[in-house]
Amino acid sequence: MANTDCLSVRVFSLNCWGIRYLSKHCPQRYHMIGEMLRKEEHDIVLLQEVWSEKDYLCLKKELATSHPYSHYFKSGVIGSGLAIFSKHRIHDTFLYRYSLNGYPYMAHHGDWFGGKAVGMVVLNLGSLTANVYVTHLHAEYSRDKDSYLPHRVVQAWELQQFIRHTSAGADVVILGGDLNMHPQDLGNRLLMSYTGLRDSYVETAKFDGCEDGMTLIAENPFISKKELVPFEKGIRIDYILFKGSSSTEIHCGFMSTTKGSVPDHPFPYSDHEALTAELTLKSNIPEEAGSNRQSKTWDSAPGRVAELVDILTEARTEVKVGLHCAERMRYTAARTGVMGLALLFLELAIAAVPWLALGAEQPFPRTSFYLLAALCFAILLITFLLYIFYTMELKSLQGAEDQMRLAVGSLQEKLRGFPVAQPHNAPQRPPGGHKPSALDPEE
Amino acid sequence: MANTDCLSVRVFSLNCWGIRYLSKHCPQRYHMIGEMLRKEEHDIVLLQEVWSEKDYLCLKKELATSHPYSHYFKSGVIGSGLAIFSKHRIHDTFLYRYSLNGYPYMAHHGDWFGGKAVGMVVLNLGSLTANVYVTHLHAEYSRDKDSYLPHRVVQAWELQQFIRHTSAGADVVILGGDLNMHPQDLGNRLLMSYTGLRDSYVETAKFDGCEDGMTLIAENPFISKKELVPFEKGIRIDYILFKGSSSTEIHCGFMSTTKGSVPDHPFPYSDHEALTAELTLKSNIPEEAGSNRQSKTWDSAPGRVAELVDILTEARTEVKVGLHCAERMRYTAARTGVMGLALLFLELAIAAVPWLALGAEQPFPRTSFYLLAALCFAILLITFLLYIFYTMELKSLQGAEDQMRLAVGSLQEKLRGFPVAQPHNAPQRPPGGHKPSALDPEE
Repeated sequence: MANTDCLSVRVFSLNCWGIRYLSKHCPQRYHMIGEMLRKEEHDIVLLQEVWSEKDYLCLKKELATSHPYSHYFKSGVIGSGLAIFSKHRIHDTFLYRYSLNGYPYMAHHGDWFGGKAVGMVVLNLGSLTANVYVTHLHAEYSRDKDSYLPHRVVQAWELQQFIRHTSAGADVVILGGDLNMHPQDLGNRLLMSYTGLRDSYVETAKFDGCEDGMTLIAENPFISKKELVPFEKGIRIDYILFKGSSSTEIHCGFMSTTKGSVPDHPFPYSDHEALTAELTLKSNIPEEAGSNRQSKTWDSAPGRVAELVDILTEARTEVKVGLHCAERMRYTAARTGVMGLALLFLELAIAAVPWLALGAEQPFPRTSFYLLAALCFAILLITFLLYIFYTMELKSLQGAEDQMRLAVGSLQEKLRGFPVAQPHNAPQRPPGGHKPSALDPEE
Repeated sequence: MANTDCLSVRVFSLNCWGIRYLSKHCPQRYHMIGEMLRKEEHDIVLLQEVWSEKDYLCLKKELATSHPYSHYFKSGVIGSGLAIFSKHRIHDTFLYRYSLNGYPYMAHHGDWFGGKAVGMVVLNLGSLTANVYVTHLHAEYSRDKDSYLPHRVVQAWELQQFIRHTSAGADVVILGGDLNMHPQDLGNRLLMSYTGLRDSYVETAKFDGCEDGMTLIAENPFISKKELVPFEKGIRIDYILFKGSSSTEIHCGFMSTTKGSVPDHPFPYSDHEALTAELTLKSNIPEEAGSNRQSKTWDSAPGRVAELVDILTEARTEVKVGLHCAERMRYTAARTGVMGLALLFLELAIAAVPWLALGAEQPFPRTSFYLLAALCFAILLITFLLYIFYTMELKSLQGAEDQMRLAVGSLQEKLRGFPVAQPHNAPQRPPGGHKPSALDPEE
C-alpha cells in the first residue's frame, strides 16, 4: 500500500459468546459472523470469547481471502478467547496475562479458566505503525455486590500500563473489546485518563445503532432481562477506543452497532452487539521519514535477519520439545485419572454384590473399602489438578510457538525482499532449509 | 539535574541469595550489601533473590539517603525477589510475569513459587528517559538434563518481547539480572539478537574481575564444586546489558565483578558475584526537544493530572477493599486448615487409646476412623491450595497498590510543580485531601 496522507480504517469488535455446546446456536452464529466479515471486509476484526481454537480455525479458513492475516491468543486453561483478523500483515504479537482473574473454584463463572489477557498486534496501515489491542475483562455478575471489582480494577490498571508502555513507538493505537465496564466505571476512567484513548462512540461524527451506544440490550433474544437489572434497556460495556500520536491525527467519522437482530436471519450474531468504527488517519510524516522509522525497529541487515531466523528456528525446536513433554505429562495425568476412576467403579461394583445378595454372615470389609475409596478420590483430585496445570503449560508453550512462527514468517518475508501476497500459499522454503513461514497453526 | 551532553551512570547488579533462615549468613550479608551500596552510591542498583519483603524494607531504610527511590516487585507466592534502588526518581513501574516458570510440585526447586518476572522502571537520567529492567530467569539445575530448557527459552522470548515493545520511547535501555544462561545459550542469543542489547562485559573498555567475567565461581565459599560441573572454574550467568537509541549513544567504559571474597569481611556478598558497569551516555537531543518528548508521555495540564490523582485514589481504595477481602479469605483458609490438623491429631490420640489399652472385646470403629482421617486430609489439601492461591492474589493486589501509590506520588509531585528532595519526609497532603504521596509501603 502506498503512503497516503489520509487513510480510512474500519475496525470491528464483537464478543462472540462462543462456548461450544453451551452457547445457543453457536455453529450457526459463527457461520453468520464469518459470512458477514467476509462481505464487510473490515481492515481489523477484534473478536472475544472465541473459546474454541477449532472455531477460530474455521473462521480463519473462511476469511482466508478477505483477511489473510490473523492471530489467536492462547492463555489460561481454556484460552484467552481473543482473536484478531486483519487485511494488513501482522508483524508482531504480544500477550499480557492479567495477574488477577477471579477464582478457580468459581467454576460456574469460568473467568479464571479463560486466562483473561490483552493481546497486541503490530501492523502497518500505509506507512503508519499501528498497535492494535484486543481484550476482555472479568465479567460483572452482580452490579450491587460485585465481588470481582478489585480484580477488574487491577485488570484495568494493568491494561493501561500495558498500552501506555508498549505504544510509545506507534503512530496509531486502537483498542477493542468487551471491557465489562460501564462508561463511567472506575476502571474505564482509569484506562481512558491514563492512556488518553478516546471513545469512538463519544467521538463519532455520525452514529447508527442502539440507544446510548448500548452493546448488551434487552431486545437481544439471547439476553435474559434479569441480567440487566437495574438497567432496563441495556448497558454499554463493549468499546472501540483509539488515539493518534504527535505525528498522526485520528478521528472517527462513523460508528455503528448491531441492534439485537440481523436482517434475514432468525437470531443475532451474539448476546453482545457488534461494533464498527470508521477511523480516518491523517499522517504528518513524509514518506521517507516513515520508512526510516520502520527500519529503526526492524534491523534490516540481511545477515542479522538470517541469524535471527536461525536462532528463532532453534528456539522453536526447544519449545516443541517442551510441548511434547507437557503433552506426555498431561496424557499420563489423564490416564492415571481414568484408572483411578475405573478403580472406583470396580470397587463400587464389588461392594454392591455383598450388600445386595449376601446377608450379615459374610462381614463387609469396610476398612479396605473406605481406604481404597479415599485413595481413588485422592488420585482423581491430584490428576485433575495436574491435568489443569499441564493444560496451562501447553497453552503457554503453544502461544510462544505461534508467536515465534509468526516472527519467523515476518523475518523470512523481509529476507526474501518481497511481500507475500497469500500466506496460505504452499510454504516457500528459504535457502537455509528452515521451517516454512506459513502462518497456519496446523504446521 | 541539568541537561548534559555526556552523562556517566553506574549500574550495579547482584543476585542476593536471600532465602531467610536457609541461605548462609543471610542477615550479615544483607548488612554488608547495604553498607557497600550506601558507600558506593551507584546510580541504579538491581537486586535479585530479595525473597523477603522485610529484607527489602531494611535495605530501603539503610539506603534512604544514598538511594531515595526504590521499588520492590511482588508476584507469585513468595514474590519475584526483584528490587530496584535508584538515585533518580522512579516515574513509572511495570511488571511482566513469565507465563511459564517450572512446576509447583518441584517444591525443592522453588522457582514456581517465586513467580519469576521482569520488572521495569522508567526514570530520567538528566534529560534522557531510561527504561531499566531487572529479571531473574528459571534456574538450570542440570546442564546435561535440563528439563526446564523450554521454560527458560520461553522466558527469554517473553523477556525480549517485553523489552522490545516497552522501550520504543526510551533513550536508554538497561537490563540487569541473573539470566541463568551462559553467554552462548539459545535464550541469550534470542534476547541479544532481537533486542539489540549489548553485553557490558564484552563491550567494556576496561575490565576488572573474575576470569571470563564469570559470576558463579569455584572460589566462592558458598558454591559447591558439584554445582559447577562440567565447568571447573565457574560460569557467567549474570549480566548487565544496555543499548542506546537513535538519539543517544552509550558505551561501557569500565566493568567489574567481585572475586569471590570481600576485603575485611569473612565471606562474600552472595553465592553470585556482583557486577558493576560504568556507562557513558551521549545525547544528541537539544534541551528543548528533550523536554518536549517528556511532555508527550506525561500529559501536563494540571486539571488532567488532578483528575488522574482522583481516579487513582479511588482505584487504590477498591484495590485495598480487595486486599482486605483476600486477607480475610486467606485467614479463613489457614484457620480451617489448622482445625483440620487439630481434628486429625485428636483422632489419632483417641485411636491410640483402644489400640494401646483395650483388647478385642471393644471393636475398633475402623470405618469412622478412616472416613474421618480422609476428611481431615481433604481439608488440609484444599485449605493448603486455597492458602497458596490467596497468597498469590494478595501479592498481585499489593503489587498493583504499590504501583498505584508510586504513580500518585509522581503525579502529585508534578501537581506541586517542584521536586520532592526527600520522599521519606512527612507526607504532604494535596488540596483534595487525598492519600499522601509518600513512597513508603508501610502506608
